[in-house]
Amino acid sequence: MLRIGILGCGRIGQVHARSIRALDDARVTAVADALPAAAQALAARAGAEMRDVDAILSADDVDAVIIGTPTDSHFGQIMGAAKSGKAIFCEKPVDMSVDNIRACMNAVTAADVVFMTGFNRRFDPNFAALRARIKAGDIGAVELVTITSRDPSPPPISYIERSGGLFRDMMIHDFDMARFLMNEEFVRLHAVGSALVDPEIGAAGDVDTAAVILTTASGRICQISNSRRASYGYDQRIEVHGQRGMLRAENQLESTVEIATETGFRRDPAQHFFLERYEAAYLAEMRAFVAAALGGAAPEPDIHDGLRAQMLADAATLSRASGQPIDLALG
Amino acid sequence: MLRIGILGCGRIGQVHARSIRALDDARVTAVADALPAAAQALAARAGAEMRDVDAILSADDVDAVIIGTPTDSHFGQIMGAAKSGKAIFCEKPVDMSVDNIRACMNAVTAADVVFMTGFNRRFDPNFAALRARIKAGDIGAVELVTITSRDPSPPPISYIERSGGLFRDMMIHDFDMARFLMNEEFVRLHAVGSALVDPEIGAAGDVDTAAVILTTASGRICQISNSRRASYGYDQRIEVHGQRGMLRAENQLESTVEIATETGFRRDPAQHFFLERYEAAYLAEMRAFVAAALGGAAPEPDIHDGLRAQMLADAATLSRASGQPIDLALG
Amino acid sequence: MLRIGILGCGRIGQVHARSIRALDDARVTAVADALPAAAQALAARAGAEMRDVDAILSADDVDAVIIGTPTDSHFGQIMGAAKSGKAIFCEKPVDMSVDNIRACMNAVTAADVVFMTGFNRRFDPNFAALRARIKAGDIGAVELVTITSRDPSPPPISYIERSGGLFRDMMIHDFDMARFLMNEEFVRLHAVGSALVDPEIGAAGDVDTAAVILTTASGRICQISNSRRASYGYDQRIEVHGQRGMLRAENQLESTVEIATETGFRRDPAQHFFLERYEAAYLAEMRAFVAAALGGAAPEPDIHDGLRAQMLADAATLSRASGQPIDLALG
Amino acid sequence: MLRIGILGCGRIGQVHARSIRALDDARVTAVADALPAAAQALAARAGAEMRDVDAILSADDVDAVIIGTPTDSHFGQIMGAAKSGKAIFCEKPVDMSVDNIRACMNAVTAADVVFMTGFNRRFDPNFAALRARIKAGDIGAVELVTITSRDPSPPPISYIERSGGLFRDMMIHDFDMARFLMNEEFVRLHAVGSALVDPEIGAAGDVDTAAVILTTASGRICQISNSRRASYGYDQRIEVHGQRGMLRAENQLESTVEIATETGFRRDPAQHFFLERYEAAYLAEMRAFVAAALGGAAPEPDIHDGLRAQMLADAATLSRASGQPIDLALG
Repeated sequence: MLRIGILGCGRIGQVHARSIRALDDARVTAVADALPAAAQALAARAGAEMRDVDAILSADDVDAVIIGTPTDSHFGQIMGAAKSGKAIFCEKPVDMSVDNIRACMNAVTAADVVFMTGFNRRFDPNFAALRARIKAGDIGAVELVTITSRDPSPPPISYIERSGGLFRDMMIHDFDMARFLMNEEFVRLHAVGSALVDPEIGAAGDVDTAAVILTTASGRICQISNSRRASYGYDQRIEVHGQRGMLRAENQLESTVEIATETGFRRDPAQHFFLERYEAAYLAEMRAFVAAALGGAAPEPDIHDGLRAQMLADAATLSRASGQPIDLALG
Repeated sequence: MLRIGILGCGRIGQVHARSIRALDDARVTAVADALPAAAQALAARAGAEMRDVDAILSADDVDAVIIGTPTDSHFGQIMGAAKSGKAIFCEKPVDMSVDNIRACMNAVTAADVVFMTGFNRRFDPNFAALRARIKAGDIGAVELVTITSRDPSPPPISYIERSGGLFRDMMIHDFDMARFLMNEEFVRLHAVGSALVDPEIGAAGDVDTAAVILTTASGRICQISNSRRASYGYDQRIEVHGQRGMLRAENQLESTVEIATETGFRRDPAQHFFLERYEAAYLAEMRAFVAAALGGAAPEPDIHDGLRAQMLADAATLSRASGQPIDLALG
Repeated sequence: MLRIGILGCGRIGQVHARSIRALDDARVTAVADALPAAAQALAARAGAEMRDVDAILSADDVDAVIIGTPTDSHFGQIMGAAKSGKAIFCEKPVDMSVDNIRACMNAVTAADVVFMTGFNRRFDPNFAALRARIKAGDIGAVELVTITSRDPSPPPISYIERSGGLFRDMMIHDFDMARFLMNEEFVRLHAVGSALVDPEIGAAGDVDTAAVILTTASGRICQISNSRRASYGYDQRIEVHGQRGMLRAENQLESTVEIATETGFRRDPAQHFFLERYEAAYLAEMRAFVAAALGGAAPEPDIHDGLRAQMLADAATLSRASGQPIDLALG
Repeated sequence: MLRIGILGCGRIGQVHARSIRALDDARVTAVADALPAAAQALAARAGAEMRDVDAILSADDVDAVIIGTPTDSHFGQIMGAAKSGKAIFCEKPVDMSVDNIRACMNAVTAADVVFMTGFNRRFDPNFAALRARIKAGDIGAVELVTITSRDPSPPPISYIERSGGLFRDMMIHDFDMARFLMNEEFVRLHAVGSALVDPEIGAAGDVDTAAVILTTASGRICQISNSRRASYGYDQRIEVHGQRGMLRAENQLESTVEIATETGFRRDPAQHFFLERYEAAYLAEMRAFVAAALGGAAPEPDIHDGLRAQMLADAATLSRASGQPIDLALG
């Protein structure tokens, strides 16, 4: 039985608490949040105690922590959890600074604790099945990966301003997915982007529509495109072209119902946003974390994956600003 | 080079003339129609002569006739064409009377002429491919056939009144398709039907919505359903369930374009009606008739197929009226 | 908080226990099973006590019972639960005898307890959404309903022998769905069926492939077809044709992944069987039962729905045996 | 009646001859080919005379020419046809040299003759319908265009060597499509490419897998990807993301048949290659050319479109070789 402390009782903390409820081998012992009301509510629902972060980090009855606090709190909490030997699940991004992530990586390694980065999409049953087929060789060598990611609507400008920009906040998931599928590091990247959805986003120094090309040393190519707005729901698609065929994962729609009228055949919109679309992924993710924490094994995606994705996001941000391709350092 | 006379220059005669234009080994020599203007127009487009029916039936420069006149003219024209040794292509139904069809069958056999019944759907590339897969054993033994056939909108009441009723006018195509797919004759049939689309159709003694169950001696089952109205276009679908799998042929839509908006993902309506939907089928049908006529071989579907379909249509009409299942005579 | 006793700890009892675990307003207090090991295992997972059936029926700390025992135990358990004033959820069929169901109906009415029949498919999010669209008038008046239901593979012959036959064991779900969608009672029914999948099923006096046509007083038509075997998974589809359009709900596949190779574009099989396919339905069903039990309202589907479905199953069994259509008594 | 001379009786000349056969207002008068046997065969099928190119260019009974000869013959034939006042249909690329295309443009303008560039895909009914919806405002402002183009298998190395490279030979169609859909010229382009399909292609100095990002002055983005090999047929897809929704056109498959077995639901491969996939487009293209030639109007795509596509192909070739984005000159 893994005893878990949840740091951050917002939307994502609640998601993880619900997932843990469905698992037989884990339970939430304690929760913490800067807003006592949020912590209290989640504590009640999860049958857990409300404590402060430090108390959780040093508690004897907590084996693992789930970090779902604001990004700028991650660093201290990771360092504290590593020090007290707890398994760590941390939401993306691990930190806005690559240097800080490296420091976390060293601390985690030194403490020999389990660390998992919250790239939930790897656990989506569709994307996981797609990748299993790549690994099984069903399409032979991968040549061209195309990832499409579009949010239903942009976040508030206040969020945009603190987000680190589209590449670090949104496309970082796609960078991790690209690495997950390609199984070879990227060596060069070129990014373009514009504020087409909302000029306020442009005024805030960010873009809302973007495309990136990445290439590996062996010449494989990945295309990623993002938009902050899709009228038809959360658009999450992957396509992988290979030597012997193509794999693709389509959107999950709200239902399988189709209506046919004089205007044609209409199916439902895509599931609205990440809470619906990745409900199964969040559960599988938590199951994987619990298994890793109980077994002591290094889970995937680990902190190195968190680091690489952040490096790609930084490079894309720079490429977009400079208009030039960026050569990526390895290691 | 097969020299063809077209009897009947209405819509279907024009379709066949256009198909012949695309063939290298056939041409239209002469055309006839009760309306001289119709004959003249088609003669001009086809580069053919306008003649009367008898002149065509006895002409030396005509090897084959295509009969697309009103149903009550078929019998005399078939008998005349058989007598003069011409290959015959006749639109469905061959005749409203099963006895008359038997008489035609005898005449055609005696004269040893090629006779093809115009069940165009057998030549639809999709349905033909589906049936080829059945014959190749891709799904093993056929167990359950489901045929869905819906017109975009009902014909005028004046047409309904002369049509012989839904089962003889519309479902006859599905009866032929059922036989084509099942490869075993049906021994029992139960039909139901209602006038749900338009009470005028009911007042005219016909139905506009109907369903039939047919069974074979070995216990295989076929379901057919018809409606005279489908808001989303001409609905023409087939599904065959067998021992090792299922085959189905979906509708052909007006294009492959899909639009996604806040109401969902919408594709085009089905192709509007038979002229669009079966354009490729009509060409393949004519190609098969020309090949058979030039080669002297008996084409499929032949006059026996025309007879069997009419027998099923008669039985369905009787079953619907009586509310009882009908045992079908073989042979 | 609804305190529930589970009678029967087999597959379906376990499903309901898992659903209850995800609800905030219900918990399992006690469980019973003829096999102590089964009861013990579920009691441990659910955090409940293991008791015998009578103890549960008379317990003060049990507000509602879920009956998932063999069909021949239902009657006594329903009568007992009604007597002690507990809300009742009973798996289909309520009883093999229509008379017994009527007796239960009287007891339930006299005791004024909540009774819900376990027709889980009504709670499938797809089918529920389809029906909501019918009720919203999206396709106008319903004219023709087509229900397709195929199991992945037949149950053991020993099960077939005790099942009451395909119409009572399998198609009963489709009869309930037909009533749910049609919103008008059926007045006539004709059923055909054969043992095509396995001659042993025929030898046991049952069929494995069947089709039924039902009609309502106003002439609306429903087609149902069943097969005990579908190589491609659990085939569960609905299509409703109406005045202004058509609604259909397709199968849920194992994933959204498609692979394209030289043989074409291949998607996954349908979800394998009812536990996967109706996972969301079972949860929604339990949520509805708990809400009804706490609120005291009559849930849908109620015991009358259980009765009507059984009457249709009986009529279909008779029609198939006699080869004749059956007129259905109302009320 | 437009009297047409066909220059080049290879595959594409034959396609156009067949299209003309289906038109009422055009016919082929004469054909020419460097291989007399090819010219003779087409002359016989089309009911035309075999002549040499110069005789056709100066003939009084030829109103228009279709140029389907090797690319290096185009320039002289265009200049000759313009001089003799004939309407001109020329296959892509107009010429490998942008300067030569400009010279042709001047000659065509001076002679005031109709000139149409053979970008057949604009006439594909699906792509044309998609673009009509953009123009109708169905998705609002276009923001992100994604074009996928994959051949079933690479051409022989000997062809690759003379082709001008993937961007000029293959992606040129996609560049024209991108302009057609975007309705705003591109100002910047970045191309990557690799020889992943066949190292011989790399050894010949070309790539077989490539991706390009293009941007317009207003910040709209287009992604194009190409592969010389797709196991599942000729992959031709378009997706346009806009303010109010998304439009996409899927592949046309060989049939609508789907087979379901224990491995899942399988539809046919995409239509094999351009002759099948664009059969309807070729006919519509020829219909548009004949209408323009008879009406004297400038058809789309015109010679300026041929020029712009070639400029994009040149820029992509340079970008790929240099690894740098290219700013595109307008005008």
